[in-house]
Amino acid sequence: MALSKNKIKYIRSLDLKKNRREEKVFLAEGPKLIAELQGHYRCRLLAATEEWLKMHPNIKADETLEVSSEELSRASLLKTPQQVLGIFEQPNFSLSKDVLNHSLCLGLDDIQDPGNLGTIIRLADWFGIEYIFCSPNTVDVYSPKTIQASMGGIARVKVCYVPLENLIILETDIPVYGTFLNGENIYEQSLSQNGLIIMGNEGKGISQKIESLINRKLYIPNYPSQRETSESLNVAIATAVVCAEFRRQAAFSQNRKGTGEKL
Amino acid sequence: MALSKNKIKYIRSLDLKKNRREEKVFLAEGPKLIAELQGHYRCRLLAATEEWLKMHPNIKADETLEVSSEELSRASLLKTPQQVLGIFEQPNFSLSKDVLNHSLCLGLDDIQDPGNLGTIIRLADWFGIEYIFCSPNTVDVYSPKTIQASMGGIARVKVCYVPLENLIILETDIPVYGTFLNGENIYEQSLSQNGLIIMGNEGKGISQKIESLINRKLYIPNYPSQRETSESLNVAIATAVVCAEFRRQAAFSQNRKGTGEKL
Repeated sequence: MALSKNKIKYIRSLDLKKNRREEKVFLAEGPKLIAELQGHYRCRLLAATEEWLKMHPNIKADETLEVSSEELSRASLLKTPQQVLGIFEQPNFSLSKDVLNHSLCLGLDDIQDPGNLGTIIRLADWFGIEYIFCSPNTVDVYSPKTIQASMGGIARVKVCYVPLENLIILETDIPVYGTFLNGENIYEQSLSQNGLIIMGNEGKGISQKIESLINRKLYIPNYPSQRETSESLNVAIATAVVCAEFRRQAAFSQNRKGTGEKL
Repeated sequence: MALSKNKIKYIRSLDLKKNRREEKVFLAEGPKLIAELQGHYRCRLLAATEEWLKMHPNIKADETLEVSSEELSRASLLKTPQQVLGIFEQPNFSLSKDVLNHSLCLGLDDIQDPGNLGTIIRLADWFGIEYIFCSPNTVDVYSPKTIQASMGGIARVKVCYVPLENLIILETDIPVYGTFLNGENIYEQSLSQNGLIIMGNEGKGISQKIESLINRKLYIPNYPSQRETSESLNVAIATAVVCAEFRRQAAFSQNRKGTGEKL
């Protein structure tokens, strides 16, 4: 029942992308995240304390191990290990580009920080964005830091890797948004409820190749608008402000339809 | 001119709060951040490569050292060291509570993650929020991770530590906002342009003691609004969405005044 040295080594090896890819699995830790993933992803191995297992008698996993807190600490990649960890199979799905016609999606152009990607998945979940397309050079969605930061969002939001330019060129009549310092004030635009919102790399922003395919350039105004700020916003922060505004407009127009109220 | 073993040890020791507090200094790294801090904080020690120093002949510091990339790597706390690092004096200012009467401020109730605090400082800078009050248990603003994540925001935004309850009790007639799952839809409220927006701890949210002092409870609606999401938003993300909406309303009402345009 205990966690062998080999198992500990195996679990810790999943910090590296090449090992995750070879095994087609990912690691998730903590009661909240494990609960969220149950039923969405097949669990190959679950290692948990006696206390946690008693409280979750119906947990499903190919293999379940009762472990001591000390064993868990040795396997865990977290600073503060939490009662349970699981190894889950990476899902095998393909996304139809058709989703861009009827829903609002995110396109991530080389996001590099695993925490940023996880935070974006979490906020996408909150704002009902079901699909995220990542450029091939975007950080791996199955990085443990990304999975932990997604806070279970990964159970609902579908993430796939595809050259963004292929996606956009094939779907020429969909709105493709991106944020730029020379874009239009987002609060003065009528925003669609389908299409793609592109967010760029942390240091370089949106690549030139992708910029040329964007047909609606947006700008998040700073405040006061005349003030000089030398800095941009963090990419996850910008994504949140943009998604919030798309959804504010959507809810507002739905309410108007519902009540017949005027603008 | 080179970086002695003792200096390297000293620089690296500033990763710990007790050392920073004893010395009343903080560490900042990278050309962008160092440029932002110049003129705002006194620089005690600057260590930079020959190349960087040649490009910045007017840099001001009590002591300037030309160092090799290899020496810089040994002193740096970053994964990817960047040409220059500096040790700056912690500022010594006190904030008058009066600022709550005429400007919009943030109050952070035990934020624990240094990256979150830095990201909040960065977005506060963007949205023109000049003052952040932190509860005494909030993570240290001079943590290197916070300084780096603030991206220079720390040069403009003033951060001070104070028991938030004292601040609120003394200023009873100011609006005090906080986000709660049972709050009012933020998009349906008329938001003030002064007062305090409280943001809570990553795991526990706003403490009960502070909750009782909040007179305007807000809620960031998820989308679609009927959908169940088990998760909340990351605190920096929620802060951004809230600040963006305060400033959207402010800009909108200023535009109306300016043009005489109707709502």
